[in-house]
Amino acid sequence: MMSSIALNELEASAAARQLQRRAITAEQLVRACLDRIEAREPAAQAWTHVAADAALEHARELDRGPIRGLLHGLPIGVKDLFDTADMPTSYGSSIYAQHVPAADAAAVALSREAGAIVLGKTVTTEFATFHPGKTHNPHRSGHTPGGSSSGSAAAVADYMVPLALGTQTAASVIRPAAFCGIVGYKPSYGSIARAGIKSLSESLDTVGAFGRSVADVALFVAALTGDQRLLDLGDASGARIGVCRTHEWPQADADTQATLQQGSAMLARAGALLVDVQLPDPLSLMVQAQIDIMAYEAARSLAYERICYASSLSSELSAVLTAGMAISAAQHHENLARTARGRKEIDALFFGCDVLIAPSAVGTAPAGLESTGNPIFSRMWTLLGLPCVHLPFAKGAHDLPLGLQIIGRFGADHKTLQASHWAHQQLRANESS
Amino acid sequence: MMSSIALNELEASAAARQLQRRAITAEQLVRACLDRIEAREPAAQAWTHVAADAALEHARELDRGPIRGLLHGLPIGVKDLFDTADMPTSYGSSIYAQHVPAADAAAVALSREAGAIVLGKTVTTEFATFHPGKTHNPHRSGHTPGGSSSGSAAAVADYMVPLALGTQTAASVIRPAAFCGIVGYKPSYGSIARAGIKSLSESLDTVGAFGRSVADVALFVAALTGDQRLLDLGDASGARIGVCRTHEWPQADADTQATLQQGSAMLARAGALLVDVQLPDPLSLMVQAQIDIMAYEAARSLAYERICYASSLSSELSAVLTAGMAISAAQHHENLARTARGRKEIDALFFGCDVLIAPSAVGTAPAGLESTGNPIFSRMWTLLGLPCVHLPFAKGAHDLPLGLQIIGRFGADHKTLQASHWAHQQLRANESS
Repeated sequence: MMSSIALNELEASAAARQLQRRAITAEQLVRACLDRIEAREPAAQAWTHVAADAALEHARELDRGPIRGLLHGLPIGVKDLFDTADMPTSYGSSIYAQHVPAADAAAVALSREAGAIVLGKTVTTEFATFHPGKTHNPHRSGHTPGGSSSGSAAAVADYMVPLALGTQTAASVIRPAAFCGIVGYKPSYGSIARAGIKSLSESLDTVGAFGRSVADVALFVAALTGDQRLLDLGDASGARIGVCRTHEWPQADADTQATLQQGSAMLARAGALLVDVQLPDPLSLMVQAQIDIMAYEAARSLAYERICYASSLSSELSAVLTAGMAISAAQHHENLARTARGRKEIDALFFGCDVLIAPSAVGTAPAGLESTGNPIFSRMWTLLGLPCVHLPFAKGAHDLPLGLQIIGRFGADHKTLQASHWAHQQLRANESS
Repeated sequence: MMSSIALNELEASAAARQLQRRAITAEQLVRACLDRIEAREPAAQAWTHVAADAALEHARELDRGPIRGLLHGLPIGVKDLFDTADMPTSYGSSIYAQHVPAADAAAVALSREAGAIVLGKTVTTEFATFHPGKTHNPHRSGHTPGGSSSGSAAAVADYMVPLALGTQTAASVIRPAAFCGIVGYKPSYGSIARAGIKSLSESLDTVGAFGRSVADVALFVAALTGDQRLLDLGDASGARIGVCRTHEWPQADADTQATLQQGSAMLARAGALLVDVQLPDPLSLMVQAQIDIMAYEAARSLAYERICYASSLSSELSAVLTAGMAISAAQHHENLARTARGRKEIDALFFGCDVLIAPSAVGTAPAGLESTGNPIFSRMWTLLGLPCVHLPFAKGAHDLPLGLQIIGRFGADHKTLQASHWAHQQLRANESS
C-alpha cells in the first residue's frame, strides 16, 4: 500500500493515478471497498445488491490487462435506477423485485468501457421519486441520506466506494450529496446518455455523479462523456461569483443561511469577486413549473405502472401521478414555454458572473427515514438544465454536513467545475484551519 | 356490417365512431384485420409477431365492457422498437431475438388505456437505423417500404391495421408514409412519452403515428397525449402556406419536384395563400448537424451493444457508431448550439405563414430491399423538432405513391393538423377527379 490512509478512503482521482502506474491493484482496491461494505452495510443499508465475486474477477482481469481508460480499476456504485444486465434492477419498486434487464444502461456500459468495476447497485427511492428506501445517513443513523440517489450518496460518504452514479429530476444528486457531506455533480441537461435508466421526466432527468472531491466527479463525467476539457481544473482564482439567495431563501434554515454567508466571505477573502444576484421576478415561477412538468411527464412515463400496477405504488407516487394526469397538454406546453423564457433570463445573468452560489438544501439531513427531505433548492436549477455542484465544507444541526452549491451557465460545465474545484479548496482550507 | 367496404379498410376515425356506438364490435374489426394479415403477410412481411388470440380476447373483453376511450376497440400495430411486456421485442437486432421486456413502453400503455388493441409488433430496421428488415412495399413487391418504421407503414397501407406506432430520428415516419402512400405524423419533439422505446438519439427520437387520413393520426396522437385540441380539425381554408423547396431541392427527382409544384397549384386554386419561402443560409448546415448529432448520440445510447455485441451489429450501424465516437463533446455542443440558433431562425419564418410544404422524400420507393431510401428531406425538420405530416395524393415512377409534407411551427401541432386535414381534402379531391 502506497499511502497511509486505507485504500477505500482514497479519493477516486488519487486511486486512479495509483492504478494507472500499477502502484496498487484493482483487486486490492476492490477488496478494501468490499471489506468496508461488509463492516458498514448493516448500519448504512446503502446497497440493494453487491456483486462481490464478479467485481473481484473483473478486478483481476483488469490487473492482468492493459490500462482501459480513465476509470481503470475504480470501483463504482450504480443507483438501482440504471439497468444492469448482470445484476437485479428494481427501480426502488416491488413491481420489479425480480427484474434483470437485457442490457446495461449506457452510463454503466460507458463506465465499464473506461475500466470501472461495478461493485453493485445502490438504493433509490421508488422510481426516483419521494417514497424512501432503507438507507440511513452515514453520519447519523436514523437521519435520511437524502434522495432519490440515497444509496449512492451514502456509499461514497461512508467510504464504501469512491464514485457512484445517480440521477437528478428535482434534487436527487445535490440534496443527498449535501446531506451526506460529499461532492455531487449534476452536469448540464443532456450531457450523459440516459438510455437504460427508468424514465421519470424526460425534460428533467439528468445523470449525475458522486465523489469525495470535485476532481473525482470531473474525472467520472469526463469518462462518461468523452469531454477531455473537464480534466483540466486549471486555476479559477479571481472568479466572478454571484451570490444567489433565490426566491426560496426564506425556506432555508438559519444554519443554511449562515453557511452561504460564511462561504461567500471565505471565497471573497480568497480572491473571488463576489456580486449579489437578484433573480428576475419571472424565475419565481420556476419551482411550480418544475413540479408540474415532473408530475405531467411522470404520469406518462410511468403509464404502464400507473395502469397495470396501481396497487403496488406508494401513496406519495400515486398522488403525483394523479396530479400529473390532471394537467392538460395545453398547460404543459405553457410550462415548457415558460421554462424556455426562464432559460434565456438566467443565461443573461451569466454575463455578469462566471458561476452562482446558492443553498443546496433547506438545512442538514432531517431525522427520520420516512422522507428524503425538501428538494426546493434544486428544482429551479434542474428545470433550467444548468450544471450544479455541491461542495461540503461545514457542519450544522446534529453535527451533520452543510455546504453550498455552485451553479454554472448551461453547457459551461468545464468552467463550472474549475470554479467549484478552486472554491472547494478555499472552503476546505478554512474548514480545517 | 354497416358499410359496403370491408371492415379492415375503414379509416380509424370511421371505425372508432362505429365502435363507440356499438354498430360494429371490436371482435369483428380484429377478425377482419387478422384475415387480411393472414392473406397478405406472406408477401408483405410487415410483422415480427402477431398476437391473434390475445387480440381477440382483448376485443371480446372490450365488447363486453364500457367504452374505454378514444381508441376503444381499434387494432394497432406497434413498431418493434417499443417494449411490450406480453410480446417479444427485438429492436430489429439479433442481439434481442429472444427478448421479452418487463413493461410496456409508455406509448403502448397509453394506447391500451385509451382502448386500443395491440395486434402485434411490426418490422423495424436495426435499432431504427439503416440496416433494413424483411418488409416489402405493399404497392410493389421488391421495392422498399421505407424505414425505419417499415412494418408499421406497410401494415397500415396494406389495410392490415388502421393505425400503427412509429418513431422518427431522421426520416423514419415521413419517408415510409411517403413510400407506402399513407398519412404519417411526427408530432413536435417531446409530445409523446418515449419511456420504453430503445433510445437512439435523445435530441431527435420522436414517437409518431401512421393512419390512412389526417383525422386518424390526429385521433391517435390526441389519445396518446391527452391533447383534446387535436380532435378539432376545423376549417383551414385560406391558410397561408409557405412553399419550401429547401436547400436539398436539387436532390429531389423530377417526379417529386413536379408533385410539389402540382400540389401547390391545387392548394392555391382551393383558396390557400401560397408564398415562396427561402430558407436562411445557416439552415443549410442543419442536415450535417442532424447526421452528426445522431451519430454522436447513437454511439452513446447504444454503448452496451457497441461494446459487448460488436460482431452482431450490421456494417452500416458499426460505421455510424464509429463516426459518432470520433465526434468530440465540444463539436457536439457546437452542433447543439447551431441547432438552437436554427430553431430561432425557422420560428421567425412562421410569422409569414401558417405551415410550410416541402418534399417528403427524393422520389418514390426505390427498387430493392437492401436500403430503405434516402432520409435527406426529413433530417432538418426532425432536428428542428417541428411537427410534420405526410400527405399522399399522387403517383410517380413504377406507379408508386408520391405526396408532400406539411411542416408546422414547433408546438403548433393543432394548427398543423388543421392545415394538413384541409390540404389533404383538396389534394385528394383533385386526385380522384
